[in-house]
Amino acid sequence: MKIALIGAGNVGQGLLQLLRDKGAALATELGLHAQVVAVATRRHGTLYHPQGLDAAGVLDALAAGDLRHYPQSSGLARDWDAARIAREAQADTLIEASPTDLHSGQPALDLCLAAFASGKHVVLANKGPLAVAYHTLTDAARRANKLLRFEATVMGGTPSIRLAQQALAGCVIREARGILNGTTNYILTQMENGTSYVDALAQAQRLGYAEADPSADVDGWDAAGKALILAAALFGTTLRLDQMQVQGIRGLTRDNIFSAHQEGECWKLVARVTPEGGSVQPQRLLISDPLANVKGITNAVTYVTDVLGEVTLVGPGAGGLQTGFALLSDLVDIQRVARH
Amino acid sequence: MKIALIGAGNVGQGLLQLLRDKGAALATELGLHAQVVAVATRRHGTLYHPQGLDAAGVLDALAAGDLRHYPQSSGLARDWDAARIAREAQADTLIEASPTDLHSGQPALDLCLAAFASGKHVVLANKGPLAVAYHTLTDAARRANKLLRFEATVMGGTPSIRLAQQALAGCVIREARGILNGTTNYILTQMENGTSYVDALAQAQRLGYAEADPSADVDGWDAAGKALILAAALFGTTLRLDQMQVQGIRGLTRDNIFSAHQEGECWKLVARVTPEGGSVQPQRLLISDPLANVKGITNAVTYVTDVLGEVTLVGPGAGGLQTGFALLSDLVDIQRVARH
Repeated sequence: MKIALIGAGNVGQGLLQLLRDKGAALATELGLHAQVVAVATRRHGTLYHPQGLDAAGVLDALAAGDLRHYPQSSGLARDWDAARIAREAQADTLIEASPTDLHSGQPALDLCLAAFASGKHVVLANKGPLAVAYHTLTDAARRANKLLRFEATVMGGTPSIRLAQQALAGCVIREARGILNGTTNYILTQMENGTSYVDALAQAQRLGYAEADPSADVDGWDAAGKALILAAALFGTTLRLDQMQVQGIRGLTRDNIFSAHQEGECWKLVARVTPEGGSVQPQRLLISDPLANVKGITNAVTYVTDVLGEVTLVGPGAGGLQTGFALLSDLVDIQRVARH
Repeated sequence: MKIALIGAGNVGQGLLQLLRDKGAALATELGLHAQVVAVATRRHGTLYHPQGLDAAGVLDALAAGDLRHYPQSSGLARDWDAARIAREAQADTLIEASPTDLHSGQPALDLCLAAFASGKHVVLANKGPLAVAYHTLTDAARRANKLLRFEATVMGGTPSIRLAQQALAGCVIREARGILNGTTNYILTQMENGTSYVDALAQAQRLGYAEADPSADVDGWDAAGKALILAAALFGTTLRLDQMQVQGIRGLTRDNIFSAHQEGECWKLVARVTPEGGSVQPQRLLISDPLANVKGITNAVTYVTDVLGEVTLVGPGAGGLQTGFALLSDLVDIQRVARH
């Protein structure tokens, strides 16, 4: 399977590391022969070689600061931009792992549509295109008879989408509620331990969990974007951000958290979707709720189903290598479906 | 897909109810056209009709006490025993849901082998054949070019096997530890609430969670059988029961449980498997452990992986309808793999 990778930040590099380190095992154990033929970055160059690139070499070049450090070879193109790669590269699958724009979904959305139009499967780590144009993408995939996968967009490497769409197939999922943002959960956990909001946020920034401008996390928009994707994947509904009730954690004090704790409860930023709509809001959960004991940057989702009642999945919600694994697992799934 | 069902207790009836109630939705949404052609019980008769049986009619007959209450029709045979059904019935898939014998695996094991030999897929709710002859079964499946599925044997309807084998494919799972027996977890939860062991066991028996002879549950053997299956599915190892350390919950007192609670810990009956071996033992877990807050008859498993760290799945571990769903989800999976 030939892969064109758009975006080589933490997540894209996580995938490259997995292909470098697990390539042989993936081939022998799962029959996945994945080869990266193109890599596009916004500011550090692009590479395209129809015969394939060396994942280790790409990682070394990125570590040295720019893809121009990748060794020259016959047939290697360095002047293709992302749009041309999406359209013209000889690849089976386009992976979109560039930064998310939840409002326009661009430029990733156009790249995904170009990939389908040129006969490629599409795997997304980028939430933007799904949040703004889920049905446009699924329609384009269907018309092209290609697959769309996006496990990496919700809960990092933890297979929340695959659990819902494949392992629970046959159940009706009536509701999903989850802790979908690790940064805010880390901050709330630190506040339970006695840290102030300001100090906990500073810690999260120091550890790389929060951006310099933390508003996408602490105001709930990152979780809301993931909730939109869950709503689309589970219910086929197209919510927009402005149709959701979204409230972040800035209003919570240590006193709120302490007094909840004394009553056997716990404040969490809970994303919730049903076929009727969605919300992201701080909620007090009973300590017996499976979501209440999810600590630090860990994420979790509870699916409320007709046959099984509640099924909860807990796992890592971020991390380059972990989210790179979600991309890899989508490739494995595409391989399984497309091979037969 | 034509199905021969061996065993029509809670789990077999759960599957029949799902086929009766969800048959149309399964056909339109998942393309699964499942039709039961044979049902065998040990003491309440058998039915075989190559053109198919009516699931609602079978359930009505069972509710009336015996399959002889199923309406007569042309082509209906009532004198085929389970062995003949496994061997000769025109069916695509044999489902084995008769009572478990963890020591011999019989008579189910021979039925499974006969099914493979006659070109059928096999789906198990019965732990016995897997616990004693996992590799014999996987070899027979491979030789017959048919599929073996057993989601129903561990954690009831909660897709623990599918999570490990499909959604986490590409990860190395180094260890699994879980609460795999709902009866003992119910008893321990009641003891946390102040009930004595004897009263909690009596409650569990009244509610149908525990057998009149509760030893398979409270001495850890049910959990150990499930642990053997997990070890085989995850690591390909063939443990025997007598190679595992197995200890149940009879030795735990309310005082043990109270004093753990005062120190922020919780007693749980934990099954654990690694490539090196397995155990079932009461353990004190920190309250922050995802397994510690699993209450009542709910089950849970934590997979410890190379890439994702810990991934935990929590859901119902028993129940006829829920475990029947696991059988159904195996049929959906077989349909997906075999169709292509």
